[in-house]
Amino acid sequence: MITNQWLDEVQWNDDGLVTAIAQDHDTGEVLMLAWMNRESLELTLNEQIAVYWSRSRRKLWRKGESSGYTQRLVECRLDCDGDAILLKVEQVGGIACHTGRKSCFYRRLVDEGGNALWNTEDPVLQDPETIYGEQ
Amino acid sequence: MITNQWLDEVQWNDDGLVTAIAQDHDTGEVLMLAWMNRESLELTLNEQIAVYWSRSRRKLWRKGESSGYTQRLVECRLDCDGDAILLKVEQVGGIACHTGRKSCFYRRLVDEGGNALWNTEDPVLQDPETIYGEQ
Repeated sequence: MITNQWLDEVQWNDDGLVTAIAQDHDTGEVLMLAWMNRESLELTLNEQIAVYWSRSRRKLWRKGESSGYTQRLVECRLDCDGDAILLKVEQVGGIACHTGRKSCFYRRLVDEGGNALWNTEDPVLQDPETIYGEQ
Repeated sequence: MITNQWLDEVQWNDDGLVTAIAQDHDTGEVLMLAWMNRESLELTLNEQIAVYWSRSRRKLWRKGESSGYTQRLVECRLDCDGDAILLKVEQVGGIACHTGRKSCFYRRLVDEGGNALWNTEDPVLQDPETIYGEQ
C-alpha cells in the first residue's frame, strides 16, 4: 500500500507551503530558494525533477519548463522542524537564475568603512533574452 | 555618511522578514534555514555573527547564545528578487542543529517501491542535554 505519511510529516505553513532550497549536488553551490506545496513536492519525487509552487503566479512551476534548464533531483532532505526542504540537484545547463547566472545569490555584501552595499559579482553566463526567447 | 540603502534593497515580507540560509563556508553543507528582520541583518553585519529573528519566541536570536555554537560570518549574499539571504559561515563547534547534529537537514527522503519515508541518517555529534545543560 502506498502511503503519504512522508508528506504529512512536513510542517506546511498556513498557506500550505514550505521553503525549498536548491543546491548544486556537485559543487555545493546554493542555487535558489523557492516554495513548495504538497502537490509540488510529490511531483518532485515522482518526476525526479524540481517542481515548485510559484507564489506570484499561483501555479505549479516545473523549474526549467520555459528555458529547458531543469533541475534533476539527486537528493531530498527535510530539516529538524519539518518546514524547510533541501533539494540537491543536477542543474541542467548550469543556469538556475532567470538573469542568466548560475545562482540567484549573485549579490555579495561588501562593507567599506560603514558603507555597505550589495555588489553584483557573478557573471551572466547567458543573455536572459536568449533563455526565454520564445516567450 | 552611513546609509542603510542596502537594507532597503531587501524585499521584506509582510511580517518584515526574509528567509536566511546558513551554509558551512568550508564544506558547502547547508546547515539550517531561519528568518531575519531588518535589525537582525544589520546586527549580523555589525557583529559578524549570525543573528536571526525567532518567529516562535518573537525576539532576536543570536545563534549559539545558549550553546556557544555561534556562526561567524564569512560572506553574506542576496538573491535576485531580494527576499532570501545566504550566509556563508564558520560554524563554531561544528554543530548547527539543536538535536546535536551538524546540519538541521538530517532527514533524507528514500523511496522504496512507492513507499517513501524520511530516513534519519546523520549522526548525533553531541547529546542535546549537554549542549543546553545549563537551561
